[in-house]
Amino acid sequence: MPYAVIMAGGRGERFWPRSRMSRPKQFLNLIGDKTMLQLTVERVEKLVGIDNTYIVAGSDFKSIISEQVPHLPGENIIIEPFGRDTAAAIGLAALTLEQKNPREVMIVLPADHFIGNIPRFHEVLRSAAAAAGKNNCIVTLGITPHSPETGYGYIQRGDLLDHYGGTPVFRVIRFLEKPDYKRALEFLNSGDYLWNSGMFIWRTDLILKMIEKHAPLLDKGLKEIGQYLGSGQYDDMLEKVYNGLPKISVDYGILEKADSVLVLPCDFAWDDIGCWTAIGSYSDKDENGNVFMSEGVIMDTAGTYVFSRDKPVAVLGVADLIVVNESDSLMICHKSRAQEIKNVVRTLKDKGLEHLL
Amino acid sequence: MPYAVIMAGGRGERFWPRSRMSRPKQFLNLIGDKTMLQLTVERVEKLVGIDNTYIVAGSDFKSIISEQVPHLPGENIIIEPFGRDTAAAIGLAALTLEQKNPREVMIVLPADHFIGNIPRFHEVLRSAAAAAGKNNCIVTLGITPHSPETGYGYIQRGDLLDHYGGTPVFRVIRFLEKPDYKRALEFLNSGDYLWNSGMFIWRTDLILKMIEKHAPLLDKGLKEIGQYLGSGQYDDMLEKVYNGLPKISVDYGILEKADSVLVLPCDFAWDDIGCWTAIGSYSDKDENGNVFMSEGVIMDTAGTYVFSRDKPVAVLGVADLIVVNESDSLMICHKSRAQEIKNVVRTLKDKGLEHLL
Repeated sequence: MPYAVIMAGGRGERFWPRSRMSRPKQFLNLIGDKTMLQLTVERVEKLVGIDNTYIVAGSDFKSIISEQVPHLPGENIIIEPFGRDTAAAIGLAALTLEQKNPREVMIVLPADHFIGNIPRFHEVLRSAAAAAGKNNCIVTLGITPHSPETGYGYIQRGDLLDHYGGTPVFRVIRFLEKPDYKRALEFLNSGDYLWNSGMFIWRTDLILKMIEKHAPLLDKGLKEIGQYLGSGQYDDMLEKVYNGLPKISVDYGILEKADSVLVLPCDFAWDDIGCWTAIGSYSDKDENGNVFMSEGVIMDTAGTYVFSRDKPVAVLGVADLIVVNESDSLMICHKSRAQEIKNVVRTLKDKGLEHLL
Repeated sequence: MPYAVIMAGGRGERFWPRSRMSRPKQFLNLIGDKTMLQLTVERVEKLVGIDNTYIVAGSDFKSIISEQVPHLPGENIIIEPFGRDTAAAIGLAALTLEQKNPREVMIVLPADHFIGNIPRFHEVLRSAAAAAGKNNCIVTLGITPHSPETGYGYIQRGDLLDHYGGTPVFRVIRFLEKPDYKRALEFLNSGDYLWNSGMFIWRTDLILKMIEKHAPLLDKGLKEIGQYLGSGQYDDMLEKVYNGLPKISVDYGILEKADSVLVLPCDFAWDDIGCWTAIGSYSDKDENGNVFMSEGVIMDTAGTYVFSRDKPVAVLGVADLIVVNESDSLMICHKSRAQEIKNVVRTLKDKGLEHLL
């Protein structure tokens, strides 16, 4: 049975004021009652079981993870003492899993994405795990684009390699950074480009070999840490070595450099829920397209998202707003500017209002 | 020295959520630090002295008035046991003042208006008091219109009667109800029409005579109450009789029926502050026309009014909004819809949220 490694170390600002430094997006119930992390665990444990489900995150998130996923074995929380980007976090998880079964496949996936069709998601992951095990290759999931999105990286697919469980598996020609609109439109029209979902599947020993080959400094540090795995000195050594690891993303540091990468095109609904506007797409709306998560009244208003727990809200005669009322702060933003909430957060910081961040 | 009678019994809904049933507009610091009532008292006491300043309001407002105007003699608060519109309230005040000096002039003015040029306001009131004393006529203040306003009543002026203290005094041809836009534009262009400011000046005995002539039922009740003025039975009699008084406005019940009414055109800035959009006009604005009465940050935003006491607010990329955050409720409204906040209040009531009103 493959392992699933949920990457829960992210710290975004685009869901302020709900998201905070100490409670980022993955720990919020942005869609429905469950948090993004709870939804992610629920999805993967159905596939691999809770004992094979691991979560990587900073030490300050340990208690919130235990609280939100109380049935997860404590040793399945892999702690990064410092944030050193995805290559280091994945390497650390691979070290742990290699000790258990170096030839087993590990599925790496973010804690904060939306997945629409879960049975189809499971099918694709089973196919991906089979392809990764059989070919001992890096396997990625690519989302079939439905718009010229400029906020995602892209994967250009090449020849069809094979089918696994009915899912076609293609060779990857190359990874591409976020494009401008014109290129994104070309990508969409060509049909050969997929969104990079940030979900990766590979054998544990393979990713460690790839790190050895393409990121020697990271490899050196991980090997140092690996010597102490299971010993009483592990925590101290981890603390000592981890902060010196190079800060590189797995995409840039490993995937783009690897020779043989495969991709499975995915047709299930997927969204990385990058900002407040995405929430509306996956929430219940009234007949005017409003999501009103508050007591109160919304009149002559369209396309507006309102979230308030501590007091009723009355909205009259507006359109396309995001209104988020938290206990200590209130945010009102036009939908078209939702990506820029990080600027608001920076300005609040400059103004000495760090306690709100 | 004339008396000033400040009418503080109004209960509006258009400043919700700041205004409440128990704390209407006149008791709010909508412009600057002082409340509308405090500003009004300050203006009139400079003219007539605090001992000649009276406030008429419902009994439930007695304590808030004492709190906001602590130097006002307690007996200068004239209590209406029930709201019976302006003719009754003015009649009740006139009864009290007639006992002191029936030939003295009383100035009646609302508690919740904005006046721009106070020295000029005082000059005009002195002229009006002189005209009212000399001619024993009803005198009104008419505001020279600067826009085709459909929210005010109008006064059509006739011949010039005289000058008092340099201010011309005209005969009134008639009072007109709020016009539609086309008529309002005609009024503006003609130059003969003035906004009815709701400020009236007359001798105490005259207004009582006018009530006797034009509102006999009201006159009967007032005379009944008047018999007990100064006696121990006054409060009981007032309570008993007042609720039976006809509910009529002084404009409709008296002024429109009176034969001889005068008007002084006023050129000072005046506003009845009818809804949230008016507040912006008289508050300090940033370079984008925003009034930001809150901690926090306002970015790429124009023409927006933000009021929040209990938490910082972040506003990004919006225009022409009114945002009012109170401790128990939050209101967001487009400026063009500010007049309709009363509908919001009604809807909240229908939803059983009376505690917010």
